[in-house]
Amino acid sequence: MHATTFLKEKIHAAFHNSSYRFEPQELYEPIAYSLSQGGKRIRPILTLMACDLFEGDIDLAIPPAIGVEIFHNFTLLHDDIMDRAPLRRGMETVYKKWDANRAILSGDTMLVMAYESISQVPLQYLPFVLTVFNDTARKVCEGQQYDLNFETLSFVTIPDYLNMIRLKTAVLIACCLKVGAIMANAPIAESEKMYQFGENLGIAFQLQDDYLDVFGNSAKFGKEIGGDIGSNKKTFLYIKAFELATGSLKHELTRLFDLRSHDTEEKVSRVKEIYQQLNLDTLAGEQIAYYLNKATCFLDLVKVNETSKKALRELTKEMLHRER
Amino acid sequence: MHATTFLKEKIHAAFHNSSYRFEPQELYEPIAYSLSQGGKRIRPILTLMACDLFEGDIDLAIPPAIGVEIFHNFTLLHDDIMDRAPLRRGMETVYKKWDANRAILSGDTMLVMAYESISQVPLQYLPFVLTVFNDTARKVCEGQQYDLNFETLSFVTIPDYLNMIRLKTAVLIACCLKVGAIMANAPIAESEKMYQFGENLGIAFQLQDDYLDVFGNSAKFGKEIGGDIGSNKKTFLYIKAFELATGSLKHELTRLFDLRSHDTEEKVSRVKEIYQQLNLDTLAGEQIAYYLNKATCFLDLVKVNETSKKALRELTKEMLHRER
Repeated sequence: MHATTFLKEKIHAAFHNSSYRFEPQELYEPIAYSLSQGGKRIRPILTLMACDLFEGDIDLAIPPAIGVEIFHNFTLLHDDIMDRAPLRRGMETVYKKWDANRAILSGDTMLVMAYESISQVPLQYLPFVLTVFNDTARKVCEGQQYDLNFETLSFVTIPDYLNMIRLKTAVLIACCLKVGAIMANAPIAESEKMYQFGENLGIAFQLQDDYLDVFGNSAKFGKEIGGDIGSNKKTFLYIKAFELATGSLKHELTRLFDLRSHDTEEKVSRVKEIYQQLNLDTLAGEQIAYYLNKATCFLDLVKVNETSKKALRELTKEMLHRER
Repeated sequence: MHATTFLKEKIHAAFHNSSYRFEPQELYEPIAYSLSQGGKRIRPILTLMACDLFEGDIDLAIPPAIGVEIFHNFTLLHDDIMDRAPLRRGMETVYKKWDANRAILSGDTMLVMAYESISQVPLQYLPFVLTVFNDTARKVCEGQQYDLNFETLSFVTIPDYLNMIRLKTAVLIACCLKVGAIMANAPIAESEKMYQFGENLGIAFQLQDDYLDVFGNSAKFGKEIGGDIGSNKKTFLYIKAFELATGSLKHELTRLFDLRSHDTEEKVSRVKEIYQQLNLDTLAGEQIAYYLNKATCFLDLVKVNETSKKALRELTKEMLHRER
């Protein structure tokens, strides 16, 4: 077993030592910008940790780990165009810093680079890794489409929402863990448990993201607080609020979400109050705990000794308690 | 050897029998629209013909052939957003019929679907096919970026231009042919000749496209005639015209390309006259012939019997004499 800090350093070094300075620079500059920003690199670290859990050679797992991280960054570039997001990790988005065309094309190139990295795995792993990655990549696109659909739907249920975040966010976490297990020759049943662990962890992680968007701390969160409220995004909190609110409270919520951008600040603070009045911070916390517990159950079932699971349990905790 | 009509039918049937009716329909509707429009399916047919040339099992080559065609259609979806193109193959573009977000996300999904299809090749071919496909996909993105760069560059040379179309268009034709050869276990030297054949054929094909945009027939060409002139696109003809024109003719060209869209018709017809005055139709024809000849030389060198090459030679002729 390797220490988590060692695995993190491995990933950070792999990105640090990669050059994205190719021609034409107009294409690769946004890619270098995106990939050098860092973020926590949670996904590739999960891949290495899963590989390590089954006593695999983590160096073999680095190329697919890098691949999933590049893929993740590709989705951010394209999502930010579609969502017209100005800020990401406290920095200007590629779409905003350059333009939509650059973000489209650099994103496309990153998707290809993700496949290039994944294609480097030894032949005996290649079809298995490609299968899970292809399936995941497709689902992530489907999830983003559901998310876009929600913008114009007047009625979205909690199950609709959970399915959307499962596709858009959770399956990639699941993929990272499964790929790591595959690279360590883990039995299929075990790599499947890792997938389930990741999927539930991913749902908890996204619910937490929704929570932090309203109740988090801007500086630590790296995004504008209340961004989801300002853009009327149908998150867990939004959907649950309309489910629970009645009478004058419901009227006020409707009125607030009909307001246009000129009074965002007032809107955010008033919606937040209503969310608290409806006890949504607690409810969201319970929902997060539910999926975190489900995730943990799958990890519990994985047939390796308990000591080896410690690092993953700690990272899970770290992921879920970022800024609460 | 199989008849070309048989190979064409194989490809058309493969697309015809594929369903793209998945959920969410907002994502898959543009994909079905794009992939069911057809077009000539030249790329996948080239893959099957190359496989057939080396006496391979063409059924094995169908998945990667479908993959390159889906990839090609993905590039069209995204290019049409970037170029704001309203029309493609005589039909509304996805970007125009729906919107940019749908075209971005459906395009992304198609790129993943292209990889899914390519991933179906038997394991012994997989790394070779992935290597050439990854390399090609990256180059196609680079080519598109150069093309976008040209929009704002005041000076583009013919070599710059030829390199751009090599990347944006020709390498995919080359990839199709090489992949077909790989799937038939052709020796590396032979598959490399097929690649060179394809790359030069692709350049000739794109030069022909530039030519047809000005001197072609709208109904047969499936695009608006003079579209490149109207949008000041730096094609072979444009660059060559500024290279050759002097004095008042150069002034007039500059004036015409400074005009805005309200007088497109006059602009197109006057530019076309100047192109003819500068003998550009002949010059373009010579340039096309040069690359076509170069392509043919590589095909000549391929070590299979001459009779087997007949189908490819005919398709080449068909590709290059579409509407002239």
